[in-house]
Amino acid sequence: MSKHPEGKHIKVGILGATGTVGQRFITLLAQHPFFIIHALGASTRSAGKLYPKAANWKQTTPIPAIVRDMIVHECDPRYFVDCAAVFSGLDADAAGDIESTFRNADLAVFSNAKNYRRDPHVPLIVPLANASHLSMISQQRALHQPPLSKGFILTNANCSTTGYVIPLVAMEKAFGPIETCMVTTMQAISGAGYPGVSSLDILDNVVPYISGEEEKMEWETLKILGGIAEADDGTKTFDMHSRHPLRVSASCNRVPVIDGHTMCVSVRFSRRPPPSPQQVREALVAYTPLAQTIGCPSAPVHAIFVHEEPDRPQPRLDRYYQDGAGVSVGRVRQCPVLDIKFVVLANNVSIGAATSSIINAELSILKGVVVA
Amino acid sequence: MSKHPEGKHIKVGILGATGTVGQRFITLLAQHPFFIIHALGASTRSAGKLYPKAANWKQTTPIPAIVRDMIVHECDPRYFVDCAAVFSGLDADAAGDIESTFRNADLAVFSNAKNYRRDPHVPLIVPLANASHLSMISQQRALHQPPLSKGFILTNANCSTTGYVIPLVAMEKAFGPIETCMVTTMQAISGAGYPGVSSLDILDNVVPYISGEEEKMEWETLKILGGIAEADDGTKTFDMHSRHPLRVSASCNRVPVIDGHTMCVSVRFSRRPPPSPQQVREALVAYTPLAQTIGCPSAPVHAIFVHEEPDRPQPRLDRYYQDGAGVSVGRVRQCPVLDIKFVVLANNVSIGAATSSIINAELSILKGVVVA
Amino acid sequence: MSKHPEGKHIKVGILGATGTVGQRFITLLAQHPFFIIHALGASTRSAGKLYPKAANWKQTTPIPAIVRDMIVHECDPRYFVDCAAVFSGLDADAAGDIESTFRNADLAVFSNAKNYRRDPHVPLIVPLANASHLSMISQQRALHQPPLSKGFILTNANCSTTGYVIPLVAMEKAFGPIETCMVTTMQAISGAGYPGVSSLDILDNVVPYISGEEEKMEWETLKILGGIAEADDGTKTFDMHSRHPLRVSASCNRVPVIDGHTMCVSVRFSRRPPPSPQQVREALVAYTPLAQTIGCPSAPVHAIFVHEEPDRPQPRLDRYYQDGAGVSVGRVRQCPVLDIKFVVLANNVSIGAATSSIINAELSILKGVVVA
Amino acid sequence: MSKHPEGKHIKVGILGATGTVGQRFITLLAQHPFFIIHALGASTRSAGKLYPKAANWKQTTPIPAIVRDMIVHECDPRYFVDCAAVFSGLDADAAGDIESTFRNADLAVFSNAKNYRRDPHVPLIVPLANASHLSMISQQRALHQPPLSKGFILTNANCSTTGYVIPLVAMEKAFGPIETCMVTTMQAISGAGYPGVSSLDILDNVVPYISGEEEKMEWETLKILGGIAEADDGTKTFDMHSRHPLRVSASCNRVPVIDGHTMCVSVRFSRRPPPSPQQVREALVAYTPLAQTIGCPSAPVHAIFVHEEPDRPQPRLDRYYQDGAGVSVGRVRQCPVLDIKFVVLANNVSIGAATSSIINAELSILKGVVVA
Repeated sequence: MSKHPEGKHIKVGILGATGTVGQRFITLLAQHPFFIIHALGASTRSAGKLYPKAANWKQTTPIPAIVRDMIVHECDPRYFVDCAAVFSGLDADAAGDIESTFRNADLAVFSNAKNYRRDPHVPLIVPLANASHLSMISQQRALHQPPLSKGFILTNANCSTTGYVIPLVAMEKAFGPIETCMVTTMQAISGAGYPGVSSLDILDNVVPYISGEEEKMEWETLKILGGIAEADDGTKTFDMHSRHPLRVSASCNRVPVIDGHTMCVSVRFSRRPPPSPQQVREALVAYTPLAQTIGCPSAPVHAIFVHEEPDRPQPRLDRYYQDGAGVSVGRVRQCPVLDIKFVVLANNVSIGAATSSIINAELSILKGVVVA
Repeated sequence: MSKHPEGKHIKVGILGATGTVGQRFITLLAQHPFFIIHALGASTRSAGKLYPKAANWKQTTPIPAIVRDMIVHECDPRYFVDCAAVFSGLDADAAGDIESTFRNADLAVFSNAKNYRRDPHVPLIVPLANASHLSMISQQRALHQPPLSKGFILTNANCSTTGYVIPLVAMEKAFGPIETCMVTTMQAISGAGYPGVSSLDILDNVVPYISGEEEKMEWETLKILGGIAEADDGTKTFDMHSRHPLRVSASCNRVPVIDGHTMCVSVRFSRRPPPSPQQVREALVAYTPLAQTIGCPSAPVHAIFVHEEPDRPQPRLDRYYQDGAGVSVGRVRQCPVLDIKFVVLANNVSIGAATSSIINAELSILKGVVVA
Repeated sequence: MSKHPEGKHIKVGILGATGTVGQRFITLLAQHPFFIIHALGASTRSAGKLYPKAANWKQTTPIPAIVRDMIVHECDPRYFVDCAAVFSGLDADAAGDIESTFRNADLAVFSNAKNYRRDPHVPLIVPLANASHLSMISQQRALHQPPLSKGFILTNANCSTTGYVIPLVAMEKAFGPIETCMVTTMQAISGAGYPGVSSLDILDNVVPYISGEEEKMEWETLKILGGIAEADDGTKTFDMHSRHPLRVSASCNRVPVIDGHTMCVSVRFSRRPPPSPQQVREALVAYTPLAQTIGCPSAPVHAIFVHEEPDRPQPRLDRYYQDGAGVSVGRVRQCPVLDIKFVVLANNVSIGAATSSIINAELSILKGVVVA
Repeated sequence: MSKHPEGKHIKVGILGATGTVGQRFITLLAQHPFFIIHALGASTRSAGKLYPKAANWKQTTPIPAIVRDMIVHECDPRYFVDCAAVFSGLDADAAGDIESTFRNADLAVFSNAKNYRRDPHVPLIVPLANASHLSMISQQRALHQPPLSKGFILTNANCSTTGYVIPLVAMEKAFGPIETCMVTTMQAISGAGYPGVSSLDILDNVVPYISGEEEKMEWETLKILGGIAEADDGTKTFDMHSRHPLRVSASCNRVPVIDGHTMCVSVRFSRRPPPSPQQVREALVAYTPLAQTIGCPSAPVHAIFVHEEPDRPQPRLDRYYQDGAGVSVGRVRQCPVLDIKFVVLANNVSIGAATSSIINAELSILKGVVVA
């Protein structure tokens, strides 16, 4: 195991450690070059148990050695005081209070939950898309009562939003504002957690509805693709892409796929004439987010892999590419209604969830927002 | 078994009788009130065999008694001379020549194949949508060399096109022209025939591509939704919706569903302001195609069933409603980009294939285009 | 709707009416020739609601008209006093007390739950197998404190047991005692109820374990295949096949199939030499249970359908044959270890559950055990 | 990449390189410590093309760099003369002639095809079970006309046979001869190759039949578990377990699982009393085949992993453990009919196919049967 550039191991904690996202955090962090799992938190039902007893382990790799003898605690900050970063895989019904409590205890929380995504002081960061929003952390700390020196909450986005905003950001970077976006998703069952979707509801079936999902995609996209406006008094606000109003229409479906959200996307640019499909493909290939240039160890080599075959990406074949840390795009072609349409595949349990939080923490370390 | 209004049984034949669509034709026609299966045609490999020996029967109901002792013939018109209607479930590579040969022999061909859909004299009829295009048959006969008295080719549409044009026609009837339509499909494996899609390609997977399908949907929609223009010399042509240009963008996906194509559709009307979702729902419920008013026995009671539940229609629950002869629509709501979006489900092996051909034949009988 | 032979409609009630089995009872009873749904019982959460509001309807046919305006009651006998038969689709955790309460109220309970299957006075009847066990009812009534005139509890068997004991009974009838039976099941997800099996547990998977299932199959088989012993004082007991000890070994698996349990069975007969596969096939075809000869309207025409094709029965193709009321057997062949092996398919939601209860009630009416 | 103990890279070739098994050979050999892919053979249709153009790549990892610029040849020995080992992933219809031609050219063929498994001079080796059968190679060479110095054919077993004979061998080693074995399989679709099983045949279904599979399992088991008898003149023959006759009964089923064959097995030992379940578990855990002790790099650390949880092994969770090179056993318990029953899971595309051939080649190198 290599170490942090400065040669330190950095202690981290995991909230909701027994759940689906928590298990994924453990799997990924157990082999991380500088994060080291130090504390595990879960519900009172699990607290006090050895991790293997507390968790109904559902990963395809065995429980990592490092947590095999670890005791699960309640989600109380006192067990996490030594953690430079705390990853939250909590369910929404628990995340609100617990994450707030951890921030109050001056801890840095990297949350996968939806609760604080709409908070005007909390950055909603897809690490391959809008790492610049880290700049909001200092204001979040300053406005806290009392002001915090280290604590904050930073969230990643919904798993569907995450996948498709990465190519959208790459396109806006190359060709300027997008003004219209239509997206239809075909989402994996793992996105609903465990036990989540009943097999009777999804085998040989499509469910053309996921509660709240379309609203999340339509709203989160604006926060992520938007910039940060600064008032005369220095106060920062997320501008929600308001300088170039963007309309997003999402249609969300559940399909019988285990991992990997597939999305059909069509966009219209402000710029006339719009870029050609080939120009878009080149811009996607060329896109290099900060997480790569700054050397985040969990960032993929290819933020966006562009397929040339007509029938790719496919979730079963492409979801594990680069350990699911990048996104795959294919079928970039002209849209008879808007400008360009394409298919994007994102691994919802990797870049769509735990991997995003981890890269966000890596960014925070490497940018000095978190001092370990 | 009841009889035709005039008390006659009407003899019909089936081409491609051993294939997937052919099996469906047999299942449906075996219990038809006035059509009676008289002749079966298939490849030379099957010719001369008893039907149960020739077919690899894959339906969930047993082989109907009427064909159990029937000999399969080659697809030669001499075996079909007594048939008032010949249904074709032939594959595209065989359909071109055989259907033409049958028309030349003055036989009425109701084809499920794609070969003649773009022919300027052949009506492309979704029976719950554009039965008025039957008026093109007389010109097709007259222009044939030599002119025909009874023969013609009439096709139904691609299974995906069929499902979503029915609500589109209902909306245009109520609210005037649609000017833009975006549709993303999630199509069942049965749409690819047998053996069709390899299980290794589709289990736990989505394939975001079906060869030629998007082009078919984009083109066929214009022919079906368009009218028939008449020149000064009386020559009729399909106007391809040209009086109100319509742009259609289709994205087609294969999903692990056995039967039933689910589609997410969004439309923009010419009319400003556009209708509300509630107005659209009411128009869909009220829509009554000619096939119903004229009394086609295979027409559904509800051409369009409108669901109020947020998570319907679903293929597994809704595809067999009305024996798959109608379509199910749900989630009618405003689209942030176009006007109205909704989900439509159509049973691709029923209204999307054999049932359409049969209703087209019923329409032809009841309108006197075919005299039995 | 036709009527009972004597021209009466017979009122029946359903306990657990909103659940999976309850929905199936409603679907079947809504079109029954002489039973008429009179009362619906469910949990207090559902009580007082209109049935369509209380149930999360999951059948592929719409909610039958007869229950659309019916109010769901608590499972209290006073709402069911007019019912000649009460069908119980209750979960095991509720069935014990409620079914007992109903029997105490002198009501005839036909239960699909496991709670009373091992009761020494309660017959465990697979209607196509051991209808003769109805003779135990009079003793059950007599021994009750106070004695009952009409009330009793009669259970059907576990869905897996049901499917494979039918051919076993047919074989024992033709060839005498079976002494050894090995069975490996591949069971559908619907056997676990709703929500039941998580999709994450079963998509692209097999779960080689179903809690308690193997024990049920091994024990229930003995009670069903066994006779009734009568002591000198006239007391009857189930003999558990003890005159010819029978050893059963079951291995139960869950597979990603919606409906239909497939089982690989191998048996050894006491008789030497054993029957040939062809003799077994003929005996299975010839088998005619009392439910057929006595004219139970829900009994299948073929109790056992024997397939000649090498690759049948298959759940998707054969589970709906005869509305799932019979069982399908195929691949009858010699076993290199025991005598004969074969594959049996039974529709677990039909003959494996609600249909069995209904035929049991029909038998009770036609045999005069229940007087309507 | 490390090297062979003696520091050499050993050149190998792959026949049937574009097919499913061939792709798996390439994926595994591309990261092998001492084998290096040198030549690729496929049908004339593929010959002359670059590998990525010839293969319809279906693995979840990208095409390895080493074959990306390699030209595919016809299956002619002249392209493989420098290969110390030639792996055959050919289909049975081609394997017979080609493998024989390669042996005639004095090449060592490690075949995954069934053609020579029943040949009295060809060892049928499951590398974690009967590596001792390598001793038959010298006789195969000597009896060849003309005698061979290096060439031979060695096959691995059918994917189903492979999985379950490994625990059987471990049990016989610990407890002496098994006299009876019953096995019911639930086999993955990948076992049928590509395109293989039609999705219409297996989605929401079980097919209780795989042509020829039961015969293979019943016969191959005897050859693998049997010893080698030596006549007075030194001639060796496979004894087919004849000293302790073994009866095997197999029932084979196809289930909708992508990779991983699950099998329910029950055995009876000669020894009375038989071992207890706990003794069997311990014997399975302790089992260490030659491939491990001799240091085959592709051998798993645990030949047999024994699960204690009641519901394991499961194909989706356990098939990739140790890259699929070992087998997983669970539910070891008493059988009411035979002695011990258990569930075994084997990855059919790894230890059930390519991995077996590769370990067989490693064994041949390390035992000096092949001199590289």
